[in-house]
Amino acid sequence: MITSVSNPQIKNLIQLQNKSKARQEQRAFVAEGIKMFEESKEGGYLIKAYMGETLYQQWEKERPDLLEGYPYEVVSDAVFKVVADTLTPQGIICLVKKPAYKLDALLNNPKAKVLLLEDIRDPGNLGTMVRTAEGAGFTGIILTKSSVDMYNPKVIRSTMGAIYRMPFLYAEDFQETLKLLQENGITIYAAHLDGAEYYDKVSYAGKCAIMIGNEANGISPEAAGISDQCIKIPMEGSVESLNAAIAASVLMYEVYRQKRLND
Amino acid sequence: MITSVSNPQIKNLIQLQNKSKARQEQRAFVAEGIKMFEESKEGGYLIKAYMGETLYQQWEKERPDLLEGYPYEVVSDAVFKVVADTLTPQGIICLVKKPAYKLDALLNNPKAKVLLLEDIRDPGNLGTMVRTAEGAGFTGIILTKSSVDMYNPKVIRSTMGAIYRMPFLYAEDFQETLKLLQENGITIYAAHLDGAEYYDKVSYAGKCAIMIGNEANGISPEAAGISDQCIKIPMEGSVESLNAAIAASVLMYEVYRQKRLND
Repeated sequence: MITSVSNPQIKNLIQLQNKSKARQEQRAFVAEGIKMFEESKEGGYLIKAYMGETLYQQWEKERPDLLEGYPYEVVSDAVFKVVADTLTPQGIICLVKKPAYKLDALLNNPKAKVLLLEDIRDPGNLGTMVRTAEGAGFTGIILTKSSVDMYNPKVIRSTMGAIYRMPFLYAEDFQETLKLLQENGITIYAAHLDGAEYYDKVSYAGKCAIMIGNEANGISPEAAGISDQCIKIPMEGSVESLNAAIAASVLMYEVYRQKRLND
Repeated sequence: MITSVSNPQIKNLIQLQNKSKARQEQRAFVAEGIKMFEESKEGGYLIKAYMGETLYQQWEKERPDLLEGYPYEVVSDAVFKVVADTLTPQGIICLVKKPAYKLDALLNNPKAKVLLLEDIRDPGNLGTMVRTAEGAGFTGIILTKSSVDMYNPKVIRSTMGAIYRMPFLYAEDFQETLKLLQENGITIYAAHLDGAEYYDKVSYAGKCAIMIGNEANGISPEAAGISDQCIKIPMEGSVESLNAAIAASVLMYEVYRQKRLND
């Protein structure tokens, strides 16, 4: 049992939680909780699990089957508390391999529905968008490099497991990537407060992408300029804009609504 | 200038931020930031503003007009930092009168579109729902008493000002209130994972209400039983549910989409 926070494995877990650079170098990240444990195990991404001693003893007694088929370490409850990032830790932390997605697969999907994120900064917003994107049948997400790291613990938590299933990548050159999408027959709709058309007056048949901009500044003029069409969400009252994750979700579910109507 | 955190006014601001009981007793709450200051002033809800000395000196020099027409106190920057609840305070905190809304006005609105919230616990979710409800043209919100306090500083912040404009009330008896809605011709649609009908196959013409349940447990069997219809949002992949604020927004914008189609 690991009983010291200076244990090299524990130090590495903490570093992976706090530093996106460490996550990049090791191509690994840390995910908490039983749901995340199950999903990473099923997906084949689990490198090693770290259990608090209380959970370990409980499983040993009641569910020994849960302790089979993967590498794990038992950690004293005191040490576990230090590593846990949540307020109410469930007693398990996983070291998980980053999946690697290829742009080609995203582009060549004949049913491509892509979410484009320019400079999303709030981890909760990003995680929620990943979760909703999976729900609305989107096939992938492309982000600018200035967006928040997908493996930030708060992002992972708010995806509720969708992070293991939704293909995504950070574009080296966002504007070039947008053009590549268009060359591959993907129509780009940019959510913009000055959009000429309401989002629900547009047909999203065929391969398409929805672009959402930064929480404070919206989509950059450059990215809006490359888009095929700027669309807007109508708003009553004195509301100036919707939360970025809400806007993304309203748009993705309209795309999905139309898709289900036509299928 | 107030220079001590033991100043009774400062102590009261802190108490109002932290204790919903104090907010109830004084029928007042605390809101931060320039946008909130402007909105509460315009709405006639501002009791008194508290400015950090840096902002005060800036306004005195550059915008003396902003210092007219309302009571305010200047607070030393050190004291201001203690009271400010945000990471990047804008230098102004407002003591604001709680608006009082009546159920009758909500019920008798011939165009009633009501959001019903059972036991919403996350302040960010609630604030975002208030903001989106205004955007989607909803006319009011009714919450169970077990829901998070609307005047929690995090809720206020995420409403982005909509809190001053969206009528809302906490139901003494939620189930009785649901029946009252129905007696007043308001059809209740409950968002439920076991809903018989997809949300976009239903007509929301006329007076109606959308009900959203607790983040972890959804709508209670009692409330679902009283509802006129349980509706569900379709989901692809392995997504088990959407975030509560996302679900509410997808539903409210479908109600609004239909309303705009028919108007």
